[in-house]
Amino acid sequence: MNVDRPDYRAIMMMDPPRTNTPFATAQQEFLLDRVWSRPGLSRRNRRWVTLTCVGAADAEKPIEDHVHAALSSGDIDIQEMLEFVLHFAVYNGWPKASHLEGVVRRAWAKLEIAAGRSGAIAPPDQSSLGDNDWDARLARGVKEFMDVNLIEAPQPRTPYIHAGILTFVFGHVWQRPGLSRRDRRFITVASVAVCDSPVPLKSHTGSALESGDITKPEMDEVVLQLSAYSGFAKGEALHMAAEEAWDRLHR
Amino acid sequence: MNVDRPDYRAIMMMDPPRTNTPFATAQQEFLLDRVWSRPGLSRRNRRWVTLTCVGAADAEKPIEDHVHAALSSGDIDIQEMLEFVLHFAVYNGWPKASHLEGVVRRAWAKLEIAAGRSGAIAPPDQSSLGDNDWDARLARGVKEFMDVNLIEAPQPRTPYIHAGILTFVFGHVWQRPGLSRRDRRFITVASVAVCDSPVPLKSHTGSALESGDITKPEMDEVVLQLSAYSGFAKGEALHMAAEEAWDRLHR
Amino acid sequence: MNVDRPDYRAIMMMDPPRTNTPFATAQQEFLLDRVWSRPGLSRRNRRWVTLTCVGAADAEKPIEDHVHAALSSGDIDIQEMLEFVLHFAVYNGWPKASHLEGVVRRAWAKLEIAAGRSGAIAPPDQSSLGDNDWDARLARGVKEFMDVNLIEAPQPRTPYIHAGILTFVFGHVWQRPGLSRRDRRFITVASVAVCDSPVPLKSHTGSALESGDITKPEMDEVVLQLSAYSGFAKGEALHMAAEEAWDRLHR
Repeated sequence: MNVDRPDYRAIMMMDPPRTNTPFATAQQEFLLDRVWSRPGLSRRNRRWVTLTCVGAADAEKPIEDHVHAALSSGDIDIQEMLEFVLHFAVYNGWPKASHLEGVVRRAWAKLEIAAGRSGAIAPPDQSSLGDNDWDARLARGVKEFMDVNLIEAPQPRTPYIHAGILTFVFGHVWQRPGLSRRDRRFITVASVAVCDSPVPLKSHTGSALESGDITKPEMDEVVLQLSAYSGFAKGEALHMAAEEAWDRLHR
Repeated sequence: MNVDRPDYRAIMMMDPPRTNTPFATAQQEFLLDRVWSRPGLSRRNRRWVTLTCVGAADAEKPIEDHVHAALSSGDIDIQEMLEFVLHFAVYNGWPKASHLEGVVRRAWAKLEIAAGRSGAIAPPDQSSLGDNDWDARLARGVKEFMDVNLIEAPQPRTPYIHAGILTFVFGHVWQRPGLSRRDRRFITVASVAVCDSPVPLKSHTGSALESGDITKPEMDEVVLQLSAYSGFAKGEALHMAAEEAWDRLHR
Repeated sequence: MNVDRPDYRAIMMMDPPRTNTPFATAQQEFLLDRVWSRPGLSRRNRRWVTLTCVGAADAEKPIEDHVHAALSSGDIDIQEMLEFVLHFAVYNGWPKASHLEGVVRRAWAKLEIAAGRSGAIAPPDQSSLGDNDWDARLARGVKEFMDVNLIEAPQPRTPYIHAGILTFVFGHVWQRPGLSRRDRRFITVASVAVCDSPVPLKSHTGSALESGDITKPEMDEVVLQLSAYSGFAKGEALHMAAEEAWDRLHR
């Protein structure tokens, strides 16, 4: 494998399609040679962005292919992948995550059986999560919200804020031990860019950069990776959000 | 069944999955215990929101599961469900509705056969719809537009406004007898939130509240239900639209 | 066939469904009689809009049906359809395009076999594309960007702009010979409307009108066609973008 020009097999962990359509040719020449081969963002982090994009796009075969590739390459292990499904559910909704979860479990079982192993999945370790009392979760959620978003948490006056954002999203999911905050940043930025609601896009892109969890050169690569997998229209919105956030932080 | 903690079977009308992944655990602890179990929004209205979200998300299994659950629980009858498919088509487009229609018909046939009935579907009663003359439809559409949106109808200068909005969407669909205007409000608000076009989101959220068809506490529950099923990014956009509309109406 | 009231078979190239649900009835009365039958936009251009909408919506059956209809009607030939898949990939992302590519290839093979032909697809002619050197592509991309968008190209400071927008999207795809720029306008306007990122929506709608590649009456028809297939929420956003662009150009 030439590191500058990774072949299809090195990224996708399978043989390339044997076609010469415009789409298939561009897949090699643009997607692989000009996107995946770039320095500046690790292959693992490109996988987070890509998995988010294909999961949101509902295209069955690409979801199966990228889940298989991520697991069989060893870039993402099964516990991390299952945590990803939950984080993805938060930002892209339960229905798409439910499909993804099924794909992950089947892909994993297949790989394990092929390797002569049982494929049993250990239950996730939640011991670091602390007291599950709702007040404690709310208090932790308020703190985590501030740590992640770098602004004050909103008052828990509505069900969305109380039962959703503060006690579940930040009071639980973001604190789970299976993925680092940096992992969650990549997944979240890609998710809000795919959804393209302007306010979450602006806030998560901004806080990812302001916290230093994602550097500006890495964010630039995220923009390109996402443009390829979710289209240049959504890519342009993320590009603008990233540029504006960066200007705001450095003026 | 504990009313505060509905079990999976009471909502989904089937056995829960036997897994302990982060996703499956959160499905019980967040989705069921903290969302579906809340007072403030009827189970039937939670179903409208949820069916809209899963229909828009294209995830095959969740669509099938929620259609089955809505019909077999008796919360939504077959005539209402078929009207829902048409209303959904208007706001989420024909292709997704076409898939949904097939799922509804298959789920219904299966339930009817299991009950030893023929599964015949009576043609919808359109007798209340009045004269189908285009001028009459336009006149009715102008009035219905105003009744629903609480603003003047736009001039029918473009095909979108004339053939689309005034003679079809408001001149026909919103007036069909199979669903109440209140039913259509829940479906519409969820649809525009899933699509997240800012102007329709603002206008439909605002008019649902201003008309009193959806109360503020109900809208708050819609925001949470939608955040769970379409993700917190879209949920945040709906939350903001609802808060802004409420402030505008009460300042 | 009555030209004002095309039957289902003339558009879809297959028998209509034999159902009388609200959805199926509206499909004939609204979609066919009031949308597809309108003058002002050719059937071929309605197909570009429709194919983009169904491709973005991930509804399997409608994708298959519309691809089949476009190819078997002769409105779009196989080389054009394969170019469409690549252009679609750029604006709607690789995963959806990958699914679409498979559908196209299967539909084509089926039609060819039924006609007693081999179904071989000739490799696309790229001879007009010129030197593939990256600097040459960048230079061509800068010029094509200006020709298409009618504004200066951005500086290639980020991977998104350099490796994405300038050397790939405008330095290659828009210049490919298989589709005219006008074809690409219809596909692009529909794509950005489906994605509904506000800035690409505004810029592509504006430049399509300003260049004269799409006339205002044609754009009006695109808005209606897209509203039907991707829903009136996205339709409203496109309608506003088109009206605002038109006002801006003519004040």
